[in-house]
Amino acid sequence: MLFFKAKLLDIDLGNNGVIANERDLIGTEYYPQERVLIESSKGSFIGVLYTTKRMVKEGELGISRGSIEGIEEGEEVRLRHAPRPQSLRYIKKKMEGQILRPHEIHTIVDEIVQKKLSNIELTSFIVSTYIHGMEMGEIVEMAKRMGETGDKLEWDKHPVVDVHSIGGVPGNKYALITVPIVASAGIVIPKTSSRAITSAAGTADVMEVLTRVNLNAQEIKRVVKTTNGCLVWGGGVNLAPADDIIINVERPLSIDPQPQLLSSVIAKKIAAGINYTVIDIPVGPGTKIKNDREGYALARKFIELGERVGIAVECAITYGGQPIGRAVGPALEAKEALMALEDPNSAPKSLIEKSLSLAGILLELGGVAQVGSGMEMAKKILYSGKALEKFKEIVIEQGGGITNSEDVELGKYFEVIPSPKDGYVVSISNKAITNIAKEAGAPMDKKAGVLLYVKRGSKVNKGDILYRIYSSSEERLRSAVKLARRTYPVRVEGMVIRRVSKF
Amino acid sequence: MLFFKAKLLDIDLGNNGVIANERDLIGTEYYPQERVLIESSKGSFIGVLYTTKRMVKEGELGISRGSIEGIEEGEEVRLRHAPRPQSLRYIKKKMEGQILRPHEIHTIVDEIVQKKLSNIELTSFIVSTYIHGMEMGEIVEMAKRMGETGDKLEWDKHPVVDVHSIGGVPGNKYALITVPIVASAGIVIPKTSSRAITSAAGTADVMEVLTRVNLNAQEIKRVVKTTNGCLVWGGGVNLAPADDIIINVERPLSIDPQPQLLSSVIAKKIAAGINYTVIDIPVGPGTKIKNDREGYALARKFIELGERVGIAVECAITYGGQPIGRAVGPALEAKEALMALEDPNSAPKSLIEKSLSLAGILLELGGVAQVGSGMEMAKKILYSGKALEKFKEIVIEQGGGITNSEDVELGKYFEVIPSPKDGYVVSISNKAITNIAKEAGAPMDKKAGVLLYVKRGSKVNKGDILYRIYSSSEERLRSAVKLARRTYPVRVEGMVIRRVSKF
Repeated sequence: MLFFKAKLLDIDLGNNGVIANERDLIGTEYYPQERVLIESSKGSFIGVLYTTKRMVKEGELGISRGSIEGIEEGEEVRLRHAPRPQSLRYIKKKMEGQILRPHEIHTIVDEIVQKKLSNIELTSFIVSTYIHGMEMGEIVEMAKRMGETGDKLEWDKHPVVDVHSIGGVPGNKYALITVPIVASAGIVIPKTSSRAITSAAGTADVMEVLTRVNLNAQEIKRVVKTTNGCLVWGGGVNLAPADDIIINVERPLSIDPQPQLLSSVIAKKIAAGINYTVIDIPVGPGTKIKNDREGYALARKFIELGERVGIAVECAITYGGQPIGRAVGPALEAKEALMALEDPNSAPKSLIEKSLSLAGILLELGGVAQVGSGMEMAKKILYSGKALEKFKEIVIEQGGGITNSEDVELGKYFEVIPSPKDGYVVSISNKAITNIAKEAGAPMDKKAGVLLYVKRGSKVNKGDILYRIYSSSEERLRSAVKLARRTYPVRVEGMVIRRVSKF
Repeated sequence: MLFFKAKLLDIDLGNNGVIANERDLIGTEYYPQERVLIESSKGSFIGVLYTTKRMVKEGELGISRGSIEGIEEGEEVRLRHAPRPQSLRYIKKKMEGQILRPHEIHTIVDEIVQKKLSNIELTSFIVSTYIHGMEMGEIVEMAKRMGETGDKLEWDKHPVVDVHSIGGVPGNKYALITVPIVASAGIVIPKTSSRAITSAAGTADVMEVLTRVNLNAQEIKRVVKTTNGCLVWGGGVNLAPADDIIINVERPLSIDPQPQLLSSVIAKKIAAGINYTVIDIPVGPGTKIKNDREGYALARKFIELGERVGIAVECAITYGGQPIGRAVGPALEAKEALMALEDPNSAPKSLIEKSLSLAGILLELGGVAQVGSGMEMAKKILYSGKALEKFKEIVIEQGGGITNSEDVELGKYFEVIPSPKDGYVVSISNKAITNIAKEAGAPMDKKAGVLLYVKRGSKVNKGDILYRIYSSSEERLRSAVKLARRTYPVRVEGMVIRRVSKF
């Protein structure tokens, strides 16, 4: 064990880094980049040890702001070897393809939440479950434990309903329309969403264009009490926080293993105190689910998992073979959703259809519409303007901001991609559209994305605009246009994809 | 793209971290912990972006020492988004269990060497090959490319021979005896070794107790020209550097996937200009290879791989069911090897046997001994004292140090573990001995380890010392003793392992 005086450093290393003078480590058994345990009178944390020649003096230990709440400059701290995380052996069991026992899963979840696992250890676990999968028993334990380790929301009014998409289809902003419809029918719908994992925009990214989404449990309760609904970021409320740590590893790899998908969705519902939830499973080329058979298999797993943890789950298999609506990217999608609430008649049919169907199921589950008449009721609420009013209420209660589609700003750089010939649009690639929007900067750059001028089946003449790419950065726009020219996301019938002029 | 003035920081973040003032990032499309590309007149590198409120001023970018050779304080630098590494899609192919094509493997190896892969990406690759394995064709490409990306050693005198253990058995310090025997017979043997991956001491860790092992290509050539041999750390010479980066991910997970094992061993041989090599494959309970059948299978793979890259490989399946010799841990092993060279008669038989057998094969391959008489020749060289003289020459040429076993210092804290009863030693667990040595601080703490007073079959009386644990840290010693009491690494026949007094 070594003793130091704390020196608070104004730097966020992201892994609880601490910095010692290299002369203090000579002859000790402590080494740079080793995982260490730091103890103070205010608590302890696991960090990574770095060295410096001059940045901190001998006898001092540089500690990042935020590592320990309330720690004071000059206070005595102790540095020890961090114990190897207990989960490492269970992670290795999973690497070998074995089934984990409940207490093993609990330990992994707990150590993830306590930030005891390094990126190397966490990645091993995620990749192993991606390759080997998990049994339903393991997923149940994972979901339950994840749902327990964090804040819990409790509600006075019941039932509490929710709608959730597993993602995979770009432009899927239906929740901004579905939630206010359901809420204005008097049903409690505290919707939490994630940010983009592999997509160009998660619902939380889209909503954040208009208002705050980083609400704590207290604030959510207040918003829902006033409006019956909300549209917030799940990670901001510390509901099932393991999920948000896991996503940080999944995002750079663009993977979303099914066991994690199932457990993280249901864990959030447990923590959010949900009674009924509808899961939207988009199916089609370019989505996460290739065909109906796979969609039904996943639906059955969600329903079983829900049953085993006490949540009634319904699934909606939806068409996801091309983007929903025309906008892909946070600001573009926020604008499109607002426009749809303002004037449903001029909104893309695919977006309206989907939003109303899901709202219909929820109105029936919530007991305010007869089975079979939910969608009709949803439609009335939307066209009456009540959904728009409710949505504005929610935006303002959450601390926003923007309630008019004209006020949504898009990237100041844009370029249009015209059709190279006359014909019909035969396909729009989800993957290519997503990649172009991401190359343009989405979801980090909220104003970046793709706006489609056509959908599958559209008739186009040579020179007509197929889509427009937006970005806040000229450099990223150029890069996105280059990608668009290489990947042909919108195919017009008879278009020559590659010309071979010599053999 | 953003422009900054370089501010050189005296901190080594390990991942080429750069630090910007958070006010400089507001409204830009750059985010903390994002991977960025830094360009200067002196070159460019990929790093991770961190933020600070005060550590650097607005307009400045803090850059870790060593990130760019020759960069000057105040010089203009440009910050851009780092492109996603190209290998990511090939890593994902491997995650899916697909076979990688040569150019895909080359890209992965190249990007590993260029440090373009994050720990998350690299771990995904290693874990995927651990789970799915690799075909021989993939391993060949991996070995060849790894062998090409780095320094290459070339030799005037041939043949150039080498001996290499795949590890898995503690106390395996034979190379300190085998190399000087072969070198004193006039054969060139430039031995490079790795540091411990999952063990308590690699050959390089052991040798470092006596002399420098961190030699560059120039220095190795000089040592070998003078003495015919050397015992250096492979990572210090930049031979097949991909291996050393991969090991940094394998070590915390305590894994060593077979495709990496094969390709990294042979890559080092390619880079070191080896013509013949003997691979020592320890077999037995607690080693990497459980039985002879597995040992033969691995041997065949090594021989095929060698053939396909132009190196003649022989394999020696050796007994690895208990530690080699009596010492486990860098300083303890260095001391034992020196004692064996000084007085072979009083050295543990297992160590002498193994060192001589391997030396014998090399003397035959090197063409100085008749087939079948190599071991006899090796024995003569060892007992004549020539091997000791040669070893001292090598230690001194490498820049050492210590050439007398009495000068080797051990950990100042130690504790003995006595036998709880009379009987015979029925087993010694490799794994438990290794774990105790590591808990005591090995290999980082060079003076930590375990010294066995008994071997399998030894007769002991109650109270006789079974082994002694050394450490430089009282705290770690205590922790190792605790582990020893829990794991019984040395079992004495008839010992009660657990007493159950009630049902």
